Amino acid sequence: MPYELIEGLPSTHGDHYPLNTTTLIRHAARTYPEQEVVYRTGGGDWDRYTYADCFDRVKRAAKVLRELGVGPGDVVGILDWNSKRHFELYWAIPGLAAVMLQMNLRLAPTDLGYVTSHSGASTVLVDESLLSVAEELAPHAPGVRTWVVMSDRPLSEIETSLPNVMHFEDLMQTAHADIDLPLIEESSAYSACYTSGTTGKPKGVYYSHRGIYLHAMAQAATLSMDIEDAVMLITPMFHGQSWGLPQSAVFSAAKIVLPGRYAASETSVLVETMVAERVTVANGAPAIFQPMLDHIATMDDKPDFHRLRLLSGATEPALAMMRGFAELTGARVVHAYGATETTPFVAVNRSKPVLDSCLTDAERWDLMRSQGLPVCGVDIRLVDAQGNDLPHDGVAQGEVLVRGPWIIERYHNIADDADRFLDGWWRSGDMGRIDGNGYLKLTDRIKDVIKSGGEWISSIDMENAIVSHPEVVEAAVIAVPHPQWQERPLALVVTRDGQEIPTSVIHRLLADSFAKWQLPDDIVYVDRLPRTSVGKLDKKALRAQYAGSAQLLS
Amino acid sequence: MPYELIEGLPSTHGDHYPLNTTTLIRHAARTYPEQEVVYRTGGGDWDRYTYADCFDRVKRAAKVLRELGVGPGDVVGILDWNSKRHFELYWAIPGLAAVMLQMNLRLAPTDLGYVTSHSGASTVLVDESLLSVAEELAPHAPGVRTWVVMSDRPLSEIETSLPNVMHFEDLMQTAHADIDLPLIEESSAYSACYTSGTTGKPKGVYYSHRGIYLHAMAQAATLSMDIEDAVMLITPMFHGQSWGLPQSAVFSAAKIVLPGRYAASETSVLVETMVAERVTVANGAPAIFQPMLDHIATMDDKPDFHRLRLLSGATEPALAMMRGFAELTGARVVHAYGATETTPFVAVNRSKPVLDSCLTDAERWDLMRSQGLPVCGVDIRLVDAQGNDLPHDGVAQGEVLVRGPWIIERYHNIADDADRFLDGWWRSGDMGRIDGNGYLKLTDRIKDVIKSGGEWISSIDMENAIVSHPEVVEAAVIAVPHPQWQERPLALVVTRDGQEIPTSVIHRLLADSFAKWQLPDDIVYVDRLPRTSVGKLDKKALRAQYAGSAQLLS
Repeated sequence: MPYELIEGLPSTHGDHYPLNTTTLIRHAARTYPEQEVVYRTGGGDWDRYTYADCFDRVKRAAKVLRELGVGPGDVVGILDWNSKRHFELYWAIPGLAAVMLQMNLRLAPTDLGYVTSHSGASTVLVDESLLSVAEELAPHAPGVRTWVVMSDRPLSEIETSLPNVMHFEDLMQTAHADIDLPLIEESSAYSACYTSGTTGKPKGVYYSHRGIYLHAMAQAATLSMDIEDAVMLITPMFHGQSWGLPQSAVFSAAKIVLPGRYAASETSVLVETMVAERVTVANGAPAIFQPMLDHIATMDDKPDFHRLRLLSGATEPALAMMRGFAELTGARVVHAYGATETTPFVAVNRSKPVLDSCLTDAERWDLMRSQGLPVCGVDIRLVDAQGNDLPHDGVAQGEVLVRGPWIIERYHNIADDADRFLDGWWRSGDMGRIDGNGYLKLTDRIKDVIKSGGEWISSIDMENAIVSHPEVVEAAVIAVPHPQWQERPLALVVTRDGQEIPTSVIHRLLADSFAKWQLPDDIVYVDRLPRTSVGKLDKKALRAQYAGSAQLLS
Repeated sequence: MPYELIEGLPSTHGDHYPLNTTTLIRHAARTYPEQEVVYRTGGGDWDRYTYADCFDRVKRAAKVLRELGVGPGDVVGILDWNSKRHFELYWAIPGLAAVMLQMNLRLAPTDLGYVTSHSGASTVLVDESLLSVAEELAPHAPGVRTWVVMSDRPLSEIETSLPNVMHFEDLMQTAHADIDLPLIEESSAYSACYTSGTTGKPKGVYYSHRGIYLHAMAQAATLSMDIEDAVMLITPMFHGQSWGLPQSAVFSAAKIVLPGRYAASETSVLVETMVAERVTVANGAPAIFQPMLDHIATMDDKPDFHRLRLLSGATEPALAMMRGFAELTGARVVHAYGATETTPFVAVNRSKPVLDSCLTDAERWDLMRSQGLPVCGVDIRLVDAQGNDLPHDGVAQGEVLVRGPWIIERYHNIADDADRFLDGWWRSGDMGRIDGNGYLKLTDRIKDVIKSGGEWISSIDMENAIVSHPEVVEAAVIAVPHPQWQERPLALVVTRDGQEIPTSVIHRLLADSFAKWQLPDDIVYVDRLPRTSVGKLDKKALRAQYAGSAQLLS
């Protein structure tokens, strides 16, 4: 434990009535047995059942797993879309004190094999539509002894090269719901999710029952969710547990809507279902919401989404998209901040009554694009390059550090994670500011920041300033190694006509926001900037290409 | 620990980032520094300050206490109304890992002395208006070495016989806010409250930081409270921490309204303040709300309270009062259930969408008077006289047992509390039913129930049935000891004209709801029934008077 804890007098609440996820689903099923779970089947049809029926199947699934030999501490993998069975396994596996491994079906077979083997999973449940993923994975996951296929079709109709495959629904048919799910030590792992690992191997985050439970309560309270909400889970349940929304929705006894597998061409299906089921909360990246808005723009009768909150993460939503949803449908895009390591809720954007009267319309929209206000329970700090605290004044920029009951304190079974933590705080790798009203605004990734003379220079701020010149099409500012200053900024600029701009003009553009020592020593004009497969500036490639240029510049 | 816990795989959330109440107030002050705390001063004026200013005073108060020698595990008593300083001490005392003793200023000096001595409190802070209570208490609390008076007036103007009194505001003036409140082991006691103890000595409930924190989140989520709420604390902060509303309000960053000391004649002040501060949540017993409604009935311009939830506890609210608030103001009376031992939120009434279409207006109002739906996190069981589980079918009546993270597992430092617990569940002493929709309805106190032949007979149900006879004015059913059946019911009846009613007629009234063996063997006609000082039937007196009658009856 990285904290020094002071002990007071023992309380009469006792030590430890445990926070278990089973409590959430059992409470919902007992108190709101009539509430609905709506789901899309493998065939593309929509169907529904009640919380009571769902919990009955949860218990039967737990019985099935126990009969397959799954016990406390065992790891069980799932390869599935946001389906009804996936949702049941969310409660059945952890209900046995086993660990649900979230298997990202978009990973390469070798990476997914690494994740599966590193977790020690010996049982994997796979949706029929993903058998090919499992078959490619199998050679890279030799520890998996039991494969269970989930399908509405009988086993005899399913073809697969997986060895000794069992059929989930066959097992369910003979299983009874007469199982008492145990009380579980709350620091036990509920599920495991591995970071995508842009650098190095994926790293394992093992969420505790306690962390998931507290996150569910905090999220439900922060989003004011209740039984009259209908929550559509669009963000994959196989990564970051769909941002914790399945659990907060059940805590709130909200209606659940599971879209299953849907193709990019089926945006209209999502929108129609949101209308039909009166969805009030949905989650996703801006890349999911933008096609929805495009579709809505073509509709004659615009849907009335005035109760809908679109919980948006991963990247900053575009202003035009936020305004578009508001103007066409009344829906609010709610920008939230978090990471795999943070369960993920760290901050969420919401307007404050105190600001209503003092912001212009443009300022308010700009604020809505920020990462928002910290969620109660999570501590946020900004630190400089030396780890010193920075003020929350809207000016000082530093790395965002986070700690709290649902923030990791280490990675699973790896030796060298010390650089990701500072005194028990998790280092997000994000650089940002916090203003006097408490709003967090990310400005850069630390890895893209220029570390010069023991200080940091934000590459993105500098890029934005340079791009404000009318002749500049795009710009990238990268760090190049420097013998005296460690790193120096180098600006790569694409101009409209290929002409260079005098350095003094660029420096004048930067003078307002940057100190003199922070200005780039030289500017390189290029025809175009390299981009990654998802369209982001490929700064890694640029850094490699220009690594030797500091000597030239100095 | 009364639970067997299964251990799974260790999580990477770590063991134990602690749930501390300091997190709640610090988060609120940092993220919503502008939010207001409105309070009534000792002089009767209203004033206000911000969360930021409040937290500054909280830290200074902690500094003052530390300089007075208060440290982890020490108990500090408070004698005060729902005042600004009381609110600050709610965070300052537990922030040091010390225990805040809630001192019920309505207790007799000997009882309050017992509570103070049993808790081991050595420091007591007392509002100037309550010096006489402290002076009467002092001889019964010899362990108190430090008395601190809280007043806006200077010490020189304050007269008291208490020895070596210090002056809170004098100490605050020289204290700085530069204190780092420690991280506290979460099972440490946050505060202590003693049961009123109708039988025997008061019993100590010592709430943990963890229990208070979880209760705050659950209450905030259940009541959908947020920054746009304004919460008026009417229920005393000196008993059951005003039902946990101070903490859930701070979790939600709601505006706080502290009415201080107000006389019964000042109901109009409460109503005016609710209007002026746009109060949306207030708590109290029906005995507090009824005079408010009476006052509102006299107002020409009825206040618009459509956002107001009146959180009502202790006894069932009268239907006429609930309807009156709804019809005159739009306010909802929200009936909740709990006890000192349960922090107190166990159940809270709310309507379910599924019932909207299938209940008559009368049925809906009747349902709104029930204790409502369990709060997520709390487990509720009904058991019969042998401790066997009873179904939640709306018919079976049993004792309500409760367990969960904010329910006590023992009383503080007493030896003989085993009869109040069953397998780790707290025995509420309440008898009730739970229907298929999850609604809890209390029917009786177990001590008033007749235990006959190993089964229970509800006295209140039987009384209600007898009173339905047009000639009956009132009735009491009590248990009388019986050599063979342990207890038998005896009905005491007052009729309009003093005439007796044939026993067969009474038995016919009871036939629908009671088995034959449950019917009272005899009925005694009396002129009047004894009542306690607060107007309740004095069944204790009746049981004593008729203890010998079973021999006669059998």
